[in-house]
Amino acid sequence: MAASFADRLHQAIQDKQSVAVVGIDPRRDRLPPELARQASGGDDPGRSAVPEAFLRFGMGIVDAVHDLVPAVKPNLAFFEAWGTEGLAAYNAICEYACANGLLVIGDAKRGDIGSTAAAYAEALFGKALGPHDAVTLSPYLGSDSLQPFLDRALPHGRGVYVLVKTSNPSSADLQDLELAAGGTVAEAAAALVQTLGASCKGTSGLSSVGAVVGATHPAQLAGFRERMPDTLLLLPGYGAQGAGAADVTSAFRADGSGAVVNASRSILFAWQAEDAPDDWRGAARRAAARMRDDLKQALQAAGRWNL
Amino acid sequence: MAASFADRLHQAIQDKQSVAVVGIDPRRDRLPPELARQASGGDDPGRSAVPEAFLRFGMGIVDAVHDLVPAVKPNLAFFEAWGTEGLAAYNAICEYACANGLLVIGDAKRGDIGSTAAAYAEALFGKALGPHDAVTLSPYLGSDSLQPFLDRALPHGRGVYVLVKTSNPSSADLQDLELAAGGTVAEAAAALVQTLGASCKGTSGLSSVGAVVGATHPAQLAGFRERMPDTLLLLPGYGAQGAGAADVTSAFRADGSGAVVNASRSILFAWQAEDAPDDWRGAARRAAARMRDDLKQALQAAGRWNL
Repeated sequence: MAASFADRLHQAIQDKQSVAVVGIDPRRDRLPPELARQASGGDDPGRSAVPEAFLRFGMGIVDAVHDLVPAVKPNLAFFEAWGTEGLAAYNAICEYACANGLLVIGDAKRGDIGSTAAAYAEALFGKALGPHDAVTLSPYLGSDSLQPFLDRALPHGRGVYVLVKTSNPSSADLQDLELAAGGTVAEAAAALVQTLGASCKGTSGLSSVGAVVGATHPAQLAGFRERMPDTLLLLPGYGAQGAGAADVTSAFRADGSGAVVNASRSILFAWQAEDAPDDWRGAARRAAARMRDDLKQALQAAGRWNL
Repeated sequence: MAASFADRLHQAIQDKQSVAVVGIDPRRDRLPPELARQASGGDDPGRSAVPEAFLRFGMGIVDAVHDLVPAVKPNLAFFEAWGTEGLAAYNAICEYACANGLLVIGDAKRGDIGSTAAAYAEALFGKALGPHDAVTLSPYLGSDSLQPFLDRALPHGRGVYVLVKTSNPSSADLQDLELAAGGTVAEAAAALVQTLGASCKGTSGLSSVGAVVGATHPAQLAGFRERMPDTLLLLPGYGAQGAGAADVTSAFRADGSGAVVNASRSILFAWQAEDAPDDWRGAARRAAARMRDDLKQALQAAGRWNL
């Protein structure tokens, strides 16, 4: 039996002394100049110029951050937009990240009914997409839409992160609705995650059925941690979406374990903030190192760093 | 300005005198013998035997049903499971359906935050996947996760179907939860759909922001129709999932417009029910014709057929 995803992530966090994760979300209109030149003329997704530029960008980001973070989180959407060649670039980036000692969290947000969920699980944990150590899932269709992913993932040391409270403003539309029985929809989703993960805790005491909770909701993080004490949390929304290191400390367990924080744009496009178009890898590396250090210092200041 | 998706679907329903839709969800273990032989040896998604068999199967289904139904609904999951070659087969089936006068509803159930949703919208309504006349979306992330799809779809005469109440048993987990303000989570999603679609009604009076409501919940259909009076409804769960024609009539408007009913397995695998492995196209055709007729008769019996 393979070590669980939760245990492998916990080990990687200890090895790297970092709880930062970098989202790999390339956009054609924000490629560094050298890659933008390569991508020009690639309007037709049947042509490979843009996917090739995405691949070079993704590999460059992996080169820049591989020793600073335990995992990367590429989002399928940005590659799907470029068709089958985009997805081939996605897979090559995942393989390159894996070869460079990074865990790969595939940001897919899939969710479908039982038999179709099994097909998506095969897509995400088989040979078609990835390799993935974990993927993100949407909970709207309930437990029988999630179970096929767990069945495919957990026996092979892989995991999932289920959306509970997302980082965007409109997450309030459904997720914040108050229930007649008390609590919110997001809290009901948290209970679903806690139940699904109860029987699969690794030696770290953490479950590989994780939850996504937006770093942009700092007042709610302690409550979600309390509802899901042994659940891996993935906290998006750091950086460009507005959350800072001090906002997220209450999402961690008392020893600093159990959570990672994702930033995408503030790392990928740090060359723009630095006005260093010829040093996009260096700018990404500096931004990732700063994020790692800021998170560690904030957790130390909160008395939650014993990794 | 192109005719709206709602108007085009309404016209196609009138032309075909049919409210039945066929889901194209191929599975390797349920291919007819002639295609199963072709697919054998295709364990590795890098090899094209299975996607080629899927393509022949999908084209055969289109040949069999194209004059009996207004639309088909291929689900991306079954093709994604076979990698980039699977998606190439998906696209070829969508193109073939379009060329044979069918509308194509891409069953994607995507949902992500604003900027990423825009990338998925480009994937589903650009050149990468499809062509699609409409796609299905998940509402968990709220209105700012749906709006980028509307922005990409509506100006070009395309539409969306947002999951409101899905056909699977675990849809109860979150969708049936009672809210403190009254109603359920699914009803709140219905209100979201109704609001998003209010400003985009076509000449048929129907909005191109549709909703998915499972045919497996007959007691709830009248209520959802009342909450979304001008919304296109897509009703999955007919046939193999248990719903019959009499179950779904209350989801239609008084004149029989505004809804389509999807069946997948009971059409695709009718050759197994008929024990006619060498006539899988004919069996699918007979099953689709029976579904069309059963739905028309049930709507006529309910006094809701004036198309």
